[in-house]
Amino acid sequence: MPGTSPTVAVIGLGAMGLPMATRLATAFTVTAFDVAEDRRAGVEGATPAATPAAAAAEADVALLVVRDEAQVRAALFGPDGVAGALRPGGVVVLTSTIGPDAARAVADELAGHSLDLVDAPVSGGPARAGAGDLLIVVGAAPEVLDRTRPVLEHLASTLTVIGERPGDGQALKAINQLLAGVHIAAAAEAVALARGLGLDPALVVETLSAGAAGSFMLSDRGPRMLQAYGEGAEVKSRLDIFVKDMGIVTGVGREAHVPLPLAAAAHQLYLLGEAGGLGAQDDSSVVTLLSPATD
Amino acid sequence: MPGTSPTVAVIGLGAMGLPMATRLATAFTVTAFDVAEDRRAGVEGATPAATPAAAAAEADVALLVVRDEAQVRAALFGPDGVAGALRPGGVVVLTSTIGPDAARAVADELAGHSLDLVDAPVSGGPARAGAGDLLIVVGAAPEVLDRTRPVLEHLASTLTVIGERPGDGQALKAINQLLAGVHIAAAAEAVALARGLGLDPALVVETLSAGAAGSFMLSDRGPRMLQAYGEGAEVKSRLDIFVKDMGIVTGVGREAHVPLPLAAAAHQLYLLGEAGGLGAQDDSSVVTLLSPATD
Repeated sequence: MPGTSPTVAVIGLGAMGLPMATRLATAFTVTAFDVAEDRRAGVEGATPAATPAAAAAEADVALLVVRDEAQVRAALFGPDGVAGALRPGGVVVLTSTIGPDAARAVADELAGHSLDLVDAPVSGGPARAGAGDLLIVVGAAPEVLDRTRPVLEHLASTLTVIGERPGDGQALKAINQLLAGVHIAAAAEAVALARGLGLDPALVVETLSAGAAGSFMLSDRGPRMLQAYGEGAEVKSRLDIFVKDMGIVTGVGREAHVPLPLAAAAHQLYLLGEAGGLGAQDDSSVVTLLSPATD
Repeated sequence: MPGTSPTVAVIGLGAMGLPMATRLATAFTVTAFDVAEDRRAGVEGATPAATPAAAAAEADVALLVVRDEAQVRAALFGPDGVAGALRPGGVVVLTSTIGPDAARAVADELAGHSLDLVDAPVSGGPARAGAGDLLIVVGAAPEVLDRTRPVLEHLASTLTVIGERPGDGQALKAINQLLAGVHIAAAAEAVALARGLGLDPALVVETLSAGAAGSFMLSDRGPRMLQAYGEGAEVKSRLDIFVKDMGIVTGVGREAHVPLPLAAAAHQLYLLGEAGGLGAQDDSSVVTLLSPATD
């Protein structure tokens, strides 16, 4: 479809899907579906759809913005799913983080419907999603990617093609989550140790952020961790997302026979947080496991 | 000694001590001692000394730049040590990383000699040491610090006073090393997983360094890790320094009853590296434990 503007079905209108659909509707014809009926009509400029199949029926591209592999499979291959409705030659864009093996299995199953998959997991929160400022890492054959490029470029400030196979984007995203999840846990250990040693944790975070100990997460989550001992941090990224994603990371490492002792320790820490009732809290709340507020 | 320029004894002329002594000799009267006799005369502009006591005899400030607690104690309290020679009211500046409890014990013992301690561990490599571009984190009473401030300011581009007690500088340095050591290990896991999944590790490091997965260590050690599979990385920072420092970190956490699961996992990884013969290699070589070169 070079030269024409694709019609896009957005499946999943949650924290990320809603701003992505809203932004796409400023440039493309968009249909929108979510399992929550009250969200379907909430995308300005888009046509609500009652099922994934209805959303996909007139679309060239189906963009999946759902939570996990189970939701991906339900949206594509469940009753009234996308796979039975998207026209042959259509492309499914998978923005969810589900792991490389799961993405490859989905690609194989879509091929049986004469559909292609662009594996395109995204990074960046809702605000960046709405501003077209996401990092999108892609695993897709060039000719398939080209059919979705205008859509992806409308959402991303950085579009990195890491490989030609579906699953390659998921692999890079898993490595991104490994680092992000370990760095958050390391920042939590740093803040907890500062408290335990009687240092001013705010001064510690500020002093160390600029040097060899610095990380994006220390600068971003460090100050939010300090809020965990006051009014509590706003939930910008739920802790249980890292329960899922570090589970994917350690699973990918296990399959590839790569030892990941720090990622495994971080995964256990997020599981401990979830077990302690912090799953729906901001991930920065993991610091309270290591240094309780009643210290 | 306000208004006068202190005489400085530098004890330890290794990778860090030599450039620090050389830089100090451009501004102060410096005496220099090292256990290796051939190094004593190697500091341009300084007077070599045959023992720590001889170096300290005419000094106002004794700057210790040795490896560990055992070397600190030998230089201060061993035969011909600094403590018996430095004039009463003199100040010992401890730049080594030995942990807060060890620093407090040294301060107490120096007090018996009417000597003060400035706890001032440094960060930054030899090049920055020679350029006066170190990060120095200080635990010392203000009036004691003031007597060494010209010396420290000649060595540091950033001088952060984190507390008034000897040991506070060590505490902050331990947290610095916790983050640095965990971030290097996380970068190693990222590079190893990229290799295991068939991605281009250089592209992975480059792509992720700018985003939420970024850290100083990913940008700095990541490219050196890739060299581990080629010509090998130049030894800028020995792996066994992290064996020592992560041991201090986990010990400090144990004493303070702060759980540090990631620091502990990283410490084990550096111990594995040392056990595997990598102790004198660059710390980036830890990646080869997770992903052998013969992959």
